[in-house]
Parts: sequence; structure tokens; C-alpha cells
Amino acid sequence: MTTFTHQRLLSDFAAGKKAALARAISIVENHRAGFEELLATWHPLLGHARRIGLTGPPGAGKSTLATCITRAFRARGLTVGIIAVDPTSPFTGGALLGDRIRMEDIALDPGVYIRSLATRGSLGGLSAATRETCDVLDAFGVDRILIETVGVGQSELDVARTADTNLVVLVPESGDSIQTLKAGLMEIADIFTVNKADRPGADRLRNELEVMLGMRGGAAMRNMPAHHGVDLSRNTSARQVRAAAAVLESEQWTPPVLRTVAAKDEGTDALIEAFDRHFGYLEASGTLRDRRRMRLRERVVEVVEDKVRRRLWTDTATNQWLEGRLADLESGVSTPFSIASELLARSTNLLTGTS
Amino acid sequence: MTTFTHQRLLSDFAAGKKAALARAISIVENHRAGFEELLATWHPLLGHARRIGLTGPPGAGKSTLATCITRAFRARGLTVGIIAVDPTSPFTGGALLGDRIRMEDIALDPGVYIRSLATRGSLGGLSAATRETCDVLDAFGVDRILIETVGVGQSELDVARTADTNLVVLVPESGDSIQTLKAGLMEIADIFTVNKADRPGADRLRNELEVMLGMRGGAAMRNMPAHHGVDLSRNTSARQVRAAAAVLESEQWTPPVLRTVAAKDEGTDALIEAFDRHFGYLEASGTLRDRRRMRLRERVVEVVEDKVRRRLWTDTATNQWLEGRLADLESGVSTPFSIASELLARSTNLLTGTS
Repeated sequence: MTTFTHQRLLSDFAAGKKAALARAISIVENHRAGFEELLATWHPLLGHARRIGLTGPPGAGKSTLATCITRAFRARGLTVGIIAVDPTSPFTGGALLGDRIRMEDIALDPGVYIRSLATRGSLGGLSAATRETCDVLDAFGVDRILIETVGVGQSELDVARTADTNLVVLVPESGDSIQTLKAGLMEIADIFTVNKADRPGADRLRNELEVMLGMRGGAAMRNMPAHHGVDLSRNTSARQVRAAAAVLESEQWTPPVLRTVAAKDEGTDALIEAFDRHFGYLEASGTLRDRRRMRLRERVVEVVEDKVRRRLWTDTATNQWLEGRLADLESGVSTPFSIASELLARSTNLLTGTS
Repeated sequence: MTTFTHQRLLSDFAAGKKAALARAISIVENHRAGFEELLATWHPLLGHARRIGLTGPPGAGKSTLATCITRAFRARGLTVGIIAVDPTSPFTGGALLGDRIRMEDIALDPGVYIRSLATRGSLGGLSAATRETCDVLDAFGVDRILIETVGVGQSELDVARTADTNLVVLVPESGDSIQTLKAGLMEIADIFTVNKADRPGADRLRNELEVMLGMRGGAAMRNMPAHHGVDLSRNTSARQVRAAAAVLESEQWTPPVLRTVAAKDEGTDALIEAFDRHFGYLEASGTLRDRRRMRLRERVVEVVEDKVRRRLWTDTATNQWLEGRLADLESGVSTPFSIASELLARSTNLLTGTS
């Protein structure tokens, strides 16, 4: 039945109609009937888009930077999807009016698709919603996807982990708090930029970051695939040696620290170049495959949990049973934990989909 | 074994030692061994604390207001817990240094307990973490709990729904965007305050809010319990009539629109009075019981989902099986949806806890 419902959508989507993309994202985002079939149909198409996370504290200028990056990609003939998971982003309606005006030109560009993800219901989390929206954009054929998050909470870091490349955006004002920078933010960073770099303290912040990256030493190590050795002694031709050296070099990635002034579109080209370099590293080192494999695994976990939720909480008998147990909960005779165990014990067929 | 491990914690907690409270919250927040037993032990103690949500856009001054409210409660001899779920809050380290300094006096007060909840892992969501932390504070005997959230995303609205009373904080700058105010934010508001009310546009915003609340008409209706009629014709004494009228009045709650200047501690007393009035309404109308009942139900749902997650993803055999299916996923032969169904079908005993 769903196949029939979405027949038209599938053909419009395949034909590259932007309205079909918008509708597809809505269906997937709200887990409306047939969303699983749509995502399953598009699953083999995934892997074209490069997914880039933009993460940093509120006020770091991530949205303005996203606008610069989008314009630069567009100038190179690439289509761009923007997913704003940042509640303070103008893309989600969270910031000042001026920001929104500055972004209007990209918002009207037919090669740009902007989506905010701040309103996802309790079914699935933000990272699931982000991954699913990325998948739809990817299947649609979008070349680059920018995911804007505010790098504060764990759920935002989870969102960041759905990207191939993570850009962490800092500002000179963050300088004095660099010691207290979220460890998670350092972990996920593939590229740093000090934005608003025309303000005092920018160079000091860059230096501090570089010292920290150097001191940590292991910065590049975490990106190394486990088994990816090249035995140099067996290579005979110069070409092979060069190739092997390139691979060895590609196994190392120390996050570069760039400087940008997004409000004046300064430093954008260097940023684009860093994205390309990092993607080259990801491909050559095998990290891209590892990351995407990990992402597929996480997708299965998300889908499993979503199925469990829907199977349990859309079941009338289960809801009625739970309703009948509330009096014991209120009186303190039972606890949420004992009732949860009872509920699971009686839900065998429901949970395993065999009812 | 967990009983043994946490024996000392339980007695220190019962004795009101603040260090035990901190440890208890950490155990519960990170779902460390024995957290379920702790929460189950404390379950019968719940219901003392009044839970107050502070929600609004970033920059509305929620944290400064929370500081004023906390001082006012403390002046009345009440103990206060503050849970900051707002990534831009100084309580979570997200705002300017100045804010943090202004808050230091309450942070050092032994009758105040501050906790930020921005770092919860993927086990359970933010609203589950908030509810659990509230429960621990409640069981400890804290009189008032302030929950600070940024009212933007759905997960923040979920967090807000864990409160008895929700204060929505707006600023004159939000004036021009009031038409686009998140519907959800209007839905959850029990009290509005226009903060930074010494700025231009404050009165206009208050008027607009009041018109909107009047226009909606049904604003008070949603708070009416379904079956709570009083048959006036049967009442004979004046006292009974007065009591009946009080009940009828209590069934109506139109969110008042207050004005505050948190930076100057203006309007705080009126706010405290509004909290008390709203709580009186909640009790008299039966809404408090309904809300707390709903909260208990949601707790069971959260615990069930958490149990499912832990049972599945800590199981070695399941993880190995999933690992073996990744190649099919990568090649596009299988989709995350087909593999998720397979996984659930083979997990009967695991899911229902009968293995």
C-alpha cells in the first residue's frame, strides 16, 4: 500500500524535483507511513554526498560561516544541503533578523536545500533525525551536506559524529576558556577554525590550540585504521614508493587550525581546501570506509530502538495494561522499575514482531 | 551486591549530607550499577518538591532570573535545586564569565544545589535524565526545583513537561517574532514573564501576549480536568457556595503575563507569588495529580526503553551477529530496516528478560 502511495514521490524524487525532496524529508522526519520503505529504497544510493559537521559554542558565527562555505561550494558547481540542529541558528529561526537577511541569497538558490531539525518528536533522537535527513539528501544527489550543531551537549556531539568531516568553530572570546573546552569537542575535531579572527586574541587562541594539538601528540593517532600497513621493503619502483609514502602520510591527520572572518567572507577558500584535503585523507587511509561502516551500524541500532518504541507504545493492550498499573505506582506499592520489567516480560511477541 | 555497595550512600543521603546527594545524582545520571535500586528505594519519597520549569529563547536572561528566584526562595527558608539543561546557560558553563560571577553567591549557599545536564550519553534522553535528577533532589527533600531549558527544540519541550509549573521567559526583542513563537512554547506556559522589561517594547510585548492569550480563549481550558464538576444547585450554606466557587475558579487558569528585570532583581516577588498561586490552582483543580500521574507513566516508558537498550547492546552475541551483517549493509544487499527486523526476531529471551 505504501508503495502505491509513494510511487509518484519516488519518480519525482528520482527526477530531481526539489518539492519531492522536501516532501520526502518531511515523511522521514516525522516517521510517517511508508518512511521505512522510502529509506530502504534509497539505501543503495547512499555514499555520494560528503557530510561536513560545523560545531562550536553559541555565537561563534557558525551560521554565517555555513553561508560562506555554501556560496563557495556553489561557485564550484556543487549542490549543498544545510541541516541546522543548532537552536540558536538563524536557519532554525533562533537568531537575530539581520543574520537571516544575510542568508537569504543562499536560501533562494535552487541548488541549496536548507532544513532545520529542532522540532523532532520523541520518536528517535536528534542524531537519528540528522542521519535520516542526510540520507535523503544524499540519495537525492546533493554533493555536500553541512550539519550545523552547537557543540555543547552529548546529543549534539552524537549529531556531529554523523559527519565525515567535523569543523570546530571557535572565537577569540573562547580563548580564556580553552582549558575547559569540552573534551568531546576536541575529540571530534578534524579541522579547527578561529572565526572572527580580526578580533583581539585570535592569534593567541590559534597558538594555544596548536600547542594543545601538539602536546596531545595522539591527535592523529585516533584516526589511524587498525590494520593498514604498507611494507616499504617490498616496493621496487619509485612510483610504488611514492604511493606508499602517500598512504603513510595519509594515515596521519593533525587537525589544522585555520582563521576565518565569516562576516567578511575571509578565509573561506582555505577552509574549502582543508575540507578537500581531509576528504582525500579519509579516502586514502581507509578511515572513510570505517566511519561510514560505523554509521551504518549506528543506523541499525537506531532503527531497532525505533521499532521497539513503535511496537510497544502503539499497542492498545499494552497501554491499557500500563494504565491499570498506575494506581500502584502512585501509592508507591510499585516502582517504575518493577512495572517496566513486568511490561517487558509480557511483551514477547510484540517486541520480536511475531504477533 | 548493589545494596551493599550503596548502604553508606543511602544512610548519608537520608541524613541529608550534600555530598551524598551529589554522588547519588552522578550514579543515577550515568546509570551506574545500582542506580535502579537507588531510585526504587526513593520512589515512595517523591512528591514533596515543586518542580518549576524556566524556558525561553537564548539570551532571555533565564539564568539571571533563576538566580533571583533562588535567592527569593532562600529568603523564605526554602531549599532549592537548579537543573540547567540549557547549553547557553552559565550554569552549564555556556555563557559569559560575568554571569557566572553574579551567580557565585547562590552556588556557595549550602541550601542550593546546582547541576547541569548537558552531557548525558545516548542512554536515555535529556528528559529522562532531567526527571531522574529531579527525583533524586525530591527524595533528598529539596523544596523547589528550577529546571532551566532553552525552549527551542522538541527535546527541550519534553524536558519542560517534567515540571509542575512552567515559566516562559521572553524579552522585548522577541516582540517582532511573537507570531512565530513556537506553538509548543505557548502550550506549556503556565506563567509568562517579559524579562529585561526596562527596555523599549516591553509593554507592547506584554499587550500582544495578553491579546493572544485572550484570543485563544481555550488557554485555560486545556488545564481543566475532565471530570471535576460541582453542582451549585445542591449547595445550601454560604460556606459551601464559597467553596464551590473557589473550586470553579481554580478550574480556570489563564497564564498571567508578568514583567521582570532580573539584572536588577525587579519583579521577583510577584513571580514567587504567581508560582504559589499556580501551585494552589494545580492542587485545588486536581491538575497536579493528573500531571504527576502522567509523569509516572512517562517514567515507566523511559525505564522500559532504557532496559531494552541495555539488554540488547550489552549482549556480546547480538553485537557479534550485527558485526557479521555489516558487509551486506555496505554492499546494499540489506538495509538497516531488514537487519533491524532480523535482530529483533532473534532476541526474544533477551528483550523480555527471560534468558
